[in-house]
Amino acid sequence: MKEFIYILVSAIIVQTPLFGQQTYPTLSVTKGEVVEIRSALGQGTLFDTSIDKVRAQVDQFVTTGLDVPVPKDLAGGYTHEQHKKNFLILQKAGLLFQITEEEKYAILIKETLFKYREMYPKLERHPSTKSYARGKLFWQCLNDANWLVYVSQAYDCIYDWLSEKERKELNKELFVPMANFLSVETPRFFNRLHNHSTWANAAVGMIGLVMENEDLVQKALNGLPMSKEALKDNDGGSITLKGQKKAGFLAQIDFSFSPDGYYTEGPYYQRYAMYPFLIFALALDNSKPEVKIFEYNNEVLIKGVYALLNQTNAKGEFFPLNDAQKGMSYFSRELKLALSLAYQYGTKDPSLLSLIELQESVPLIYSGMQAALAIKEGKTIPFVKKSVMLRDGAKGDEGAIGILRADKEGEVDLIMKYAKHGMGHGHFDRLSYSMFYGEQEVLQDYGAARWVNINQKDGGGYLKENKTWAKQTVAHNTVVVDEKSQFRGKVKAADAIAPTSYIFDVDNPNLQVVSAKDTNCYTGVELQRTMILLKDSSFENPLVLDLFAVNSEEEHDLLLPYYYKGQLMQTNIDFKQSTTLSAMGESDGFQHLWKEAEGKAAEGVTQINWFDKATFFTLTSTTTASDNIITAHIGANDPNFNLRHDPAFFLQKKGKKGRTLFASILETHGKYSRVSEFATNAYGSITDITIIDNTSEYTVVNFTNKQDEEWTFIISNKQRSDASKHRLTIENREIKWGGPFTLFKNELEQ
Amino acid sequence: MKEFIYILVSAIIVQTPLFGQQTYPTLSVTKGEVVEIRSALGQGTLFDTSIDKVRAQVDQFVTTGLDVPVPKDLAGGYTHEQHKKNFLILQKAGLLFQITEEEKYAILIKETLFKYREMYPKLERHPSTKSYARGKLFWQCLNDANWLVYVSQAYDCIYDWLSEKERKELNKELFVPMANFLSVETPRFFNRLHNHSTWANAAVGMIGLVMENEDLVQKALNGLPMSKEALKDNDGGSITLKGQKKAGFLAQIDFSFSPDGYYTEGPYYQRYAMYPFLIFALALDNSKPEVKIFEYNNEVLIKGVYALLNQTNAKGEFFPLNDAQKGMSYFSRELKLALSLAYQYGTKDPSLLSLIELQESVPLIYSGMQAALAIKEGKTIPFVKKSVMLRDGAKGDEGAIGILRADKEGEVDLIMKYAKHGMGHGHFDRLSYSMFYGEQEVLQDYGAARWVNINQKDGGGYLKENKTWAKQTVAHNTVVVDEKSQFRGKVKAADAIAPTSYIFDVDNPNLQVVSAKDTNCYTGVELQRTMILLKDSSFENPLVLDLFAVNSEEEHDLLLPYYYKGQLMQTNIDFKQSTTLSAMGESDGFQHLWKEAEGKAAEGVTQINWFDKATFFTLTSTTTASDNIITAHIGANDPNFNLRHDPAFFLQKKGKKGRTLFASILETHGKYSRVSEFATNAYGSITDITIIDNTSEYTVVNFTNKQDEEWTFIISNKQRSDASKHRLTIENREIKWGGPFTLFKNELEQ
Repeated sequence: MKEFIYILVSAIIVQTPLFGQQTYPTLSVTKGEVVEIRSALGQGTLFDTSIDKVRAQVDQFVTTGLDVPVPKDLAGGYTHEQHKKNFLILQKAGLLFQITEEEKYAILIKETLFKYREMYPKLERHPSTKSYARGKLFWQCLNDANWLVYVSQAYDCIYDWLSEKERKELNKELFVPMANFLSVETPRFFNRLHNHSTWANAAVGMIGLVMENEDLVQKALNGLPMSKEALKDNDGGSITLKGQKKAGFLAQIDFSFSPDGYYTEGPYYQRYAMYPFLIFALALDNSKPEVKIFEYNNEVLIKGVYALLNQTNAKGEFFPLNDAQKGMSYFSRELKLALSLAYQYGTKDPSLLSLIELQESVPLIYSGMQAALAIKEGKTIPFVKKSVMLRDGAKGDEGAIGILRADKEGEVDLIMKYAKHGMGHGHFDRLSYSMFYGEQEVLQDYGAARWVNINQKDGGGYLKENKTWAKQTVAHNTVVVDEKSQFRGKVKAADAIAPTSYIFDVDNPNLQVVSAKDTNCYTGVELQRTMILLKDSSFENPLVLDLFAVNSEEEHDLLLPYYYKGQLMQTNIDFKQSTTLSAMGESDGFQHLWKEAEGKAAEGVTQINWFDKATFFTLTSTTTASDNIITAHIGANDPNFNLRHDPAFFLQKKGKKGRTLFASILETHGKYSRVSEFATNAYGSITDITIIDNTSEYTVVNFTNKQDEEWTFIISNKQRSDASKHRLTIENREIKWGGPFTLFKNELEQ
Repeated sequence: MKEFIYILVSAIIVQTPLFGQQTYPTLSVTKGEVVEIRSALGQGTLFDTSIDKVRAQVDQFVTTGLDVPVPKDLAGGYTHEQHKKNFLILQKAGLLFQITEEEKYAILIKETLFKYREMYPKLERHPSTKSYARGKLFWQCLNDANWLVYVSQAYDCIYDWLSEKERKELNKELFVPMANFLSVETPRFFNRLHNHSTWANAAVGMIGLVMENEDLVQKALNGLPMSKEALKDNDGGSITLKGQKKAGFLAQIDFSFSPDGYYTEGPYYQRYAMYPFLIFALALDNSKPEVKIFEYNNEVLIKGVYALLNQTNAKGEFFPLNDAQKGMSYFSRELKLALSLAYQYGTKDPSLLSLIELQESVPLIYSGMQAALAIKEGKTIPFVKKSVMLRDGAKGDEGAIGILRADKEGEVDLIMKYAKHGMGHGHFDRLSYSMFYGEQEVLQDYGAARWVNINQKDGGGYLKENKTWAKQTVAHNTVVVDEKSQFRGKVKAADAIAPTSYIFDVDNPNLQVVSAKDTNCYTGVELQRTMILLKDSSFENPLVLDLFAVNSEEEHDLLLPYYYKGQLMQTNIDFKQSTTLSAMGESDGFQHLWKEAEGKAAEGVTQINWFDKATFFTLTSTTTASDNIITAHIGANDPNFNLRHDPAFFLQKKGKKGRTLFASILETHGKYSRVSEFATNAYGSITDITIIDNTSEYTVVNFTNKQDEEWTFIISNKQRSDASKHRLTIENREIKWGGPFTLFKNELEQ
């Protein structure tokens, strides 16, 4: 009965007169979709519980109204947080009005918009001068664009409920000026290829669609005429990219996504950018279906959602590549929109429903209802994360992120980074890797030095230490040459050329291999890292075999950091602890490391055993007695306590020329309970690693465990073809195999 | 039908001939109880699922048998862990045999016991010489006693199933020698008042009960004749206590527990000791009901269980007072026994059932079945932890642990320690406090420097740094005088005299007060700490007002450490970071602290704001410009990486004589989500604290918040009676009140 009444009421609304050509709403839901949504209410779906949650958030402001203060503060401060709250609440109020037809929501939007209409024409740019593109409501245009992306949806939902006079006034005094401000008045922001500018393109386009202002929509899609100047932003990133010939929303899609849906700034920013990409795409699909935006570029927007999901750990948190605040996950509001749309506009993939169930709410739009109904119908199947290479670059030929996973979900995520630099948010971290075991970080990527929106930390923006520490090479688990960062820390040089993907082979889940090369980040130095994730019944958990080869004609000092988590338990070398601690250097991030202890490495293998949460880890590395092992922790030259004081150890090989190989195995093993106080398998199993050969042609290593079982791994460093045939004589045995690598177990001689 | 058969079968068994006077089993279950247990099986209770779990653990060894290796290793090593596994499995096998009547379990026990019978007579004391009381199966007698406490239960369960010849052989060749070894052959271990010796007493008593050997039972209950020598153990603790006139199990109860059930070594060791206390008590109650052991000393054993439960945080983890490994909780096997027995032999308190449900299993004994049946009948009610003072000392007049709690479970646990020293496991931590907010530590007690049973950390025993760091005063949140530990770090002096409880008043849940004094730990220095947990609608969460008063005729340097968790966010003082880090001192724990930064305190109040997990914390302290603030982290002089590198800050007041007051407020406030990236209430609310008066008679402080609300707290330092009447003139106002303290809000002057 209830549904019937809804249909009847909405049928009447459908027949109200139209303005211009358009039926409202038109952005995130259409009139027809609203009718369908109303008819499906009350079945106890996730959509119903989502409405209840959203009502609870919005209803508290229905009587009090929303404050619209004169802009003053940075992120974390009152005026910033209030304007942010306003746009989030108004967008929700708009959908509630459409779905419930309760006028109180429309009134809340109208009254708030007229407060903005009063204030906005009087505003100059924000008093803070921190941004190269200062906003009016916020300290940077980015946040003004956020505001307009959300508020245009609210406006759309009440557009035909407002009087013509009200619409005209709001269009003329608030929305057209705001759209102009974000575009023609701030062209170097609007025309940039960058996640911030994607928000601006979407904002201008969406308000254009609401106002039926085709000029704004075209600017949004195709940008403004290109400037000739070479401009920089306040982080030192280039405003105009080399060879950039177009701008606007379509150019953002072309440029930012690789054919695999990887976004060059990394998953943290991809998550952020996916909202304007997808919400404007949805609006375009509703208003301009002829654009076929979801099919654009081989459906790259939908691929982008899958790329994001595959870049998460067992907790759903994005790998903290490049500038990224740790902890951001697929539970974010952006991913709630993304999953429903990927379900609806993709292949109706039922495995996405399992993640939507985890999110415990759906967006209040048509695709949210479709996902909720499918869940109710029991269509959900588990989402299985895969070992996957996500190529970078618009053509997919500029490096990649290689992700190796053990087949038991969440058991091991190994992430090797050999992607493009990632522009202003990139880190100098080529060939670094990080690793998760279940929900825990084993080797960490530091992420960004920033507390987003926490005011006491420099207004929530990037801290000075983000540049001096977090971006530097030594802050990552990759070889540092001569205590300098890759490309001497120059973004422009790093942006110009990517590493080379050499092998990514995950066909055999028990022997997954990724290998990449870089010859640019250090002049005259060739780097190749090969990582193998090996499952073998001789070992409790998958092993990581890591072969980091360095080749140079000149002598160089090499340092390989390991940012482990937890407590160092035991090593086979004698450490000498410093009696006073000094910084490890003066620049390139070394100034932020306190050197704690140092020891001569063992001749043969150096072993370091540590413990974190409930698990033990052991790293076994080939070393000679001329190598050093250093332990350190972060925190030197940090007067404002901006850095986490996390520990690290380093393998150091000084004065190396020719071919040098860091060969290591990382074992995950054992368990310890603080309740039962039982420890099992607290020691690693690997006893030896031997470098048999390391030429430009082949790298060959043997490794042995406590049961005297021995394995040999061989990789061809020149022939990557699966069809290649190889023959090598090792220790008087002739080995033959096909393809670029092989692993075999040696029979024990009796 | 099934139950009927069980009864029939067991009725037959009851009629088998008896040996001596006794019916078997007799220790943890009796023949009659077993009949009742069998008849209650199969109702889907927690007891049924517990049997399934225990079967799964034991069945894997039924065919393989249990290895009985020649003792060699320390904790964490193979032989140690195997013998430990053996006793745990055998005890379970015994109960399974009784309950299921499946002979395979009896056979497993018999075969294993005969392996021990073969080996034991040939054993010398363990090759490791680390312990003052070396065992035979293990490196210390303690573990041999553990073995016998568990295995005597297994033996009891098959005693009348064995042939007389088998019994005689095992008694003569294994169990009597073992009981003699633990008692007459190791008298300074057996006669000690200590948790280790409680295990020995119980072991000898329990095997005595099984073998109907009254001599052993009497030794267990009353000890051996006392030695005249003053002996020490290998940790430097006294073997014989001052004035100790008796030994044995009853003396352990008399001496170790206060009338409130607090155990002087602290909750970590109480948890460990509760197993032999309770299992031997149960055996005595079954075999010698005339002892009325559960009523002994005003039912102190049952009170001990409640004392333990009240010393846990929201995760059920024991407060890590004295030597304690963090993470030990009421999910331990000892507490599983304890809760069932406290239910059965206490008041059948239905709130205990809620914790038993959390434990997800019950012990396979009669009380376990009774608890499981009560849960099935729906009798469970929540267990509510209380604000409670747990007095220390056999008479309850030697200090206490004061626990203040906010009434919302888990919201705040504030633990102030003014108990006895706690013998060899005590820390020099008088008047220190620690705090939990929900499941997170806000101010930590370091606990012990030890990884129990992790072999690579010195065999799992206490590390050198336990003495040089963890026990020292500076490792705790209490005032350190002249950079020396209390009592100059001498256990004997500290053991001799306890602090004085002054006030513990929790009648008003919004204003809870604990205050204690010490005049002994520093010669010529009077210490009094008063802590107030204040709930007021002006503050988001309960405030902690901390008044630490120091009085001395001579000049002293005072230092108050705060071992916070998380990231320092902001302060109102200028810190100068050291360019090289040095240890803060050379002894008394200071040699383990790296000094990081120092700043002149503010004139008025110094504020430090930090963030951990999702919550902000702000400490506001009265300071003058002559005070210093120091930040540091643990880890100096730690060549084996035995310490956690946790952070701290310190308030330093140098060259003070007469009366000095550290007046501070700790606020818990705000929230931050790394997913929504919203921060709320990130700053504290307190703006000022003023010391109005601090005489031997009264301490008076005002404090103010951002809304200019002002409060005054007054405590009488001499009159603690609730009946006392007070009159004071403060800032020209006359204040009158009754009782030792008062808090009032000042009206603002218009």
